[in-house]
Amino acid sequence: MFGPRVRKSPYHEATVAAGVSAFTVYNHMYMPISFGDPAEEYRRLTERVALWDVAAQRQIEIVGGDAAAFTQYLSARSLGGLKPGRARYAPICDHEGNLINDPVALCLDDDRFWLSIADSDLGLWAKAVAAERGADVRVFEPDVSPLAIQGPRAEDLAVDLFGAEVVGALGFFHHVGTDLDGIELVLCRSGWSKQSGFELFLTDGSRGAELWDTVMAAGARFGIGPGAPNPAERVESGLLSYGSDNDSTTNPFEAGLGRWVDLDGEHDFIGKAALRRLLERGVERSLVNVSFVDADGSRLAGVLPLEHPRSARLDGQVVGELRNAVWSPRLGHGIGIALVAVAAAVPGTCLVVEIDGDSFSVVVAPEPFGTPRRPIPPS
Amino acid sequence: MFGPRVRKSPYHEATVAAGVSAFTVYNHMYMPISFGDPAEEYRRLTERVALWDVAAQRQIEIVGGDAAAFTQYLSARSLGGLKPGRARYAPICDHEGNLINDPVALCLDDDRFWLSIADSDLGLWAKAVAAERGADVRVFEPDVSPLAIQGPRAEDLAVDLFGAEVVGALGFFHHVGTDLDGIELVLCRSGWSKQSGFELFLTDGSRGAELWDTVMAAGARFGIGPGAPNPAERVESGLLSYGSDNDSTTNPFEAGLGRWVDLDGEHDFIGKAALRRLLERGVERSLVNVSFVDADGSRLAGVLPLEHPRSARLDGQVVGELRNAVWSPRLGHGIGIALVAVAAAVPGTCLVVEIDGDSFSVVVAPEPFGTPRRPIPPS
Repeated sequence: MFGPRVRKSPYHEATVAAGVSAFTVYNHMYMPISFGDPAEEYRRLTERVALWDVAAQRQIEIVGGDAAAFTQYLSARSLGGLKPGRARYAPICDHEGNLINDPVALCLDDDRFWLSIADSDLGLWAKAVAAERGADVRVFEPDVSPLAIQGPRAEDLAVDLFGAEVVGALGFFHHVGTDLDGIELVLCRSGWSKQSGFELFLTDGSRGAELWDTVMAAGARFGIGPGAPNPAERVESGLLSYGSDNDSTTNPFEAGLGRWVDLDGEHDFIGKAALRRLLERGVERSLVNVSFVDADGSRLAGVLPLEHPRSARLDGQVVGELRNAVWSPRLGHGIGIALVAVAAAVPGTCLVVEIDGDSFSVVVAPEPFGTPRRPIPPS
Repeated sequence: MFGPRVRKSPYHEATVAAGVSAFTVYNHMYMPISFGDPAEEYRRLTERVALWDVAAQRQIEIVGGDAAAFTQYLSARSLGGLKPGRARYAPICDHEGNLINDPVALCLDDDRFWLSIADSDLGLWAKAVAAERGADVRVFEPDVSPLAIQGPRAEDLAVDLFGAEVVGALGFFHHVGTDLDGIELVLCRSGWSKQSGFELFLTDGSRGAELWDTVMAAGARFGIGPGAPNPAERVESGLLSYGSDNDSTTNPFEAGLGRWVDLDGEHDFIGKAALRRLLERGVERSLVNVSFVDADGSRLAGVLPLEHPRSARLDGQVVGELRNAVWSPRLGHGIGIALVAVAAAVPGTCLVVEIDGDSFSVVVAPEPFGTPRRPIPPS
């Protein structure tokens, strides 16, 4: 049941034609989350290449004389040295030190940036800050709609589409303005998986269907198919799901993003003073990976993926919440993400969660299942 | 397909048990939009009483020494004389004069207000403004979840639940803190329909199911049933659907809210200077009601309600968009809301819209179909 209150992506009709079976709403836009075959979508992403409509990952453009200084003022991470053609993961906190978004910042020009945002109205917030401070910037949502190709064959597909020279020169989190059969876009080596890949930032929403079809056609020989940001792969790989793993009162230290909070640097940013105080008082919670230890994996089939957070108990006391849980195809057991008191965040700690009246044991893992916890590798 | 990234309402399980058939996402929360029988849901609302889970209409609480002045600074409408126990429709603009939300402001105490918001992260924005200005306020989202009873029998039901004395003393947009069998709530004579009714602002999310069941049981003899904010009734009645009728660049003059923009008053508010300039330059667009004039109403069955905005043409030129359209049970024909150039906003103007390859004629109506355009009656 679609309605005009929620926006459709430029790729909407193409995803419907490709058999999308479920949408969520993200940044006031419908975003595909399933094409009806989770096992095949996981294989496509981890063994071949998947095409994702991630137009709902909207861009906030910041342009003007103060753009560099202002963008830096928004970001808890130093953007020093971020040059045109480069991008950087840039967690953003409010004045109280709560994490309010975790975009990738793309530098398009010395005075022009995009924040490629997670699901919160960061543009509204940034506009308020800019206006109240009298910054010489314009903040707006441009007509930019990312389409992602993710998976081990994404490289081959990108070479096929854009040529070996362009793709070969593109390091991780590098981007370049280019076109595909005249369809203008910014090509960036990035994406919300650990399977490697690219995001194609389409800059003309009227050409979404064309771009989708072009990529799909070229990808046929690499086994491409439709997909969506993958809950199993991202938990396996230790990627943060903003707004899902955390809540509105989570600070970046709790969320495992402490390494990117530049408290020692010279640059001032929103929340810096509050984050200093938080650190002095001591961090009270921590996001941890957990494994389900129930021998009978079939018990999990009825309850995973998790529909909503569940209390996690240690020795009968509630110590936090299991925020997400999925069946891991790679590991062959259930895994999840919990936000718990630091005392319960010690690897090996056994927690108990109730799901639909049934009791499950989970064990805190020493680190994410794939790679060390790095929501996105440093650029 | 539910997931932990989007919140469930405290009434969620109750609505599932009551047969909810579709949800939207509103303020990062699942909100029921259908129980599978639109005709019956319309009759329930207009002839008896409907129970709506509108928990997604979140509250932004503003509390502290500067709360009254700060809340006033956010609102384009004067809040002068707004006393504890009273509420007022309070459109809010950004610094550029764009409408960014149209909440009802409830005054709970001289230094404590709720903004009962439409779907945008107004809390994030308000926190940025408060912090940058150093206002002595705390801004946060409290544990408050409205449940609405709407329809001609809502009054009888409210009397049955809360007593004739409490309900009789409650004028339009008046509210009072009370309880129902020990379940604490704020009762307000309000709601997003013109069928009269109340909103029960539950202040303890753990008791949602109890409240739902209590109201449903008491309402049985008045013919209560589940429902949701009703697209047909609200277009008939001329209620604004924020984020749906308008877009991110719509100002309140275009949206028909000019009467509540207090440009002549003494109070300063965000966007005031920009709105003055807009008015001087002249308003370029206007939100209008339209009627479908196609003799063969059955042609509309396949295309209404509208899934997304459609271009509206006058003499072949695009003059704006049909933003919403529904079949009106009361009028027996299709009606809608269009955002068009003022030259095309003249009653009687005939516009042409293409929907799924088919051409339809709509005529601009002299005023909303029910009452004069008043998103919510003045309080």
